[in-house]
Amino acid sequence: MQIIELKESVTASNDRDAEIIREKLKENGTFLANIMSSPGSGKTTLLSRTIIDLSGSYKIGVIEADIASSVDAERIEALGARSVQVHTDGMCHMDAGMTLTGLEALNYPDLDLVFLENVGNLICPAEFDTGASKSVMILSVPEGDDKPLKYPLMFSVSDLILVTKTDTLPYFNFDLEKCRQRILRLNPNAQVIPVSAKTGENMDAWYDWLKTETKNCK
Amino acid sequence: MQIIELKESVTASNDRDAEIIREKLKENGTFLANIMSSPGSGKTTLLSRTIIDLSGSYKIGVIEADIASSVDAERIEALGARSVQVHTDGMCHMDAGMTLTGLEALNYPDLDLVFLENVGNLICPAEFDTGASKSVMILSVPEGDDKPLKYPLMFSVSDLILVTKTDTLPYFNFDLEKCRQRILRLNPNAQVIPVSAKTGENMDAWYDWLKTETKNCK
Repeated sequence: MQIIELKESVTASNDRDAEIIREKLKENGTFLANIMSSPGSGKTTLLSRTIIDLSGSYKIGVIEADIASSVDAERIEALGARSVQVHTDGMCHMDAGMTLTGLEALNYPDLDLVFLENVGNLICPAEFDTGASKSVMILSVPEGDDKPLKYPLMFSVSDLILVTKTDTLPYFNFDLEKCRQRILRLNPNAQVIPVSAKTGENMDAWYDWLKTETKNCK
Repeated sequence: MQIIELKESVTASNDRDAEIIREKLKENGTFLANIMSSPGSGKTTLLSRTIIDLSGSYKIGVIEADIASSVDAERIEALGARSVQVHTDGMCHMDAGMTLTGLEALNYPDLDLVFLENVGNLICPAEFDTGASKSVMILSVPEGDDKPLKYPLMFSVSDLILVTKTDTLPYFNFDLEKCRQRILRLNPNAQVIPVSAKTGENMDAWYDWLKTETKNCK
């Protein structure tokens, strides 16, 4: 298990670095999805099922970003996907330079699809362009449908919002339609897909999105 | 509903400011609990039930800290508790100076018990001493029992960890004993109390803790 201890990038412009990464990914035909969410929203569970279901079609890699531990990268590696654990030196986000370090440690050029599992946090990661092709935000049902009101930037910068753990809808007071309207008010171009990685419900819609985006990068 | 737009404190030493706040609270006989957690862990629901159950015995105030919105302070105010909403100017934490502004806006001197509902985040709030008498961390069952491994500082700086939403234990793979051991390895002095604000299960243990701490401040 490779663990990389990162430092914050010293750079004039994170946005310019991010554009350079996006160009490299496009030239290479690799789709990079920046996955953001609260701690415990089920990012790793969702990615695990995704890897199992799509690894026959795509070469997949995962950059696991955390403050500490390597539990997530170990889970991913056990599935046979290429993975690297990066530690963010206490920082609550990944920036473009840190992402490039992770991509290079993955030896990304032969990969079709790379997931950056960002630090679990609804604030800081939204403020930094990582250079990813697209940003995906995961909101789990137990967190509540009021999150777009409280973390508007996160919902504004995400291209896709996956509402996860929909199998728990009977146990929580979560109004899917109200949540969707709150998201679209902040970000009219956002796509919203409700899924359950546990039961597999609607995971095909998430895979269709990934397949379209991966194809667009070729 | 009073909403205060805060700026980060310009101060030589946050730690010294925090000590001054703690002294003021002690002189005044007010207990201030700094409540930290992920977004959506159920802080406001827990505090709502706590206010309903304890407002006959104590004068209670709440400082609601968020990036945006005033939904939490409105919920608290509807219960008849004194509350103030502070916005953190995009910052993912409260510092001591910001907390003092909130306390003063609450007109805290006649209050026995004040809750600071910190920004929903497991990283930044752990790095700043707010001047609170004690720090309480809320970990909800749906977030998973691996959180102490991934956010060690948060668990190290908290005096009490409330494991909430225990009514959902049957639906999630959460090992309470394993979680407790992981917490105690980081912080042997931590208290760990599992509760459900929904069913009321074990809320008395949380109230006993609050009563002891409030008494110690008198």
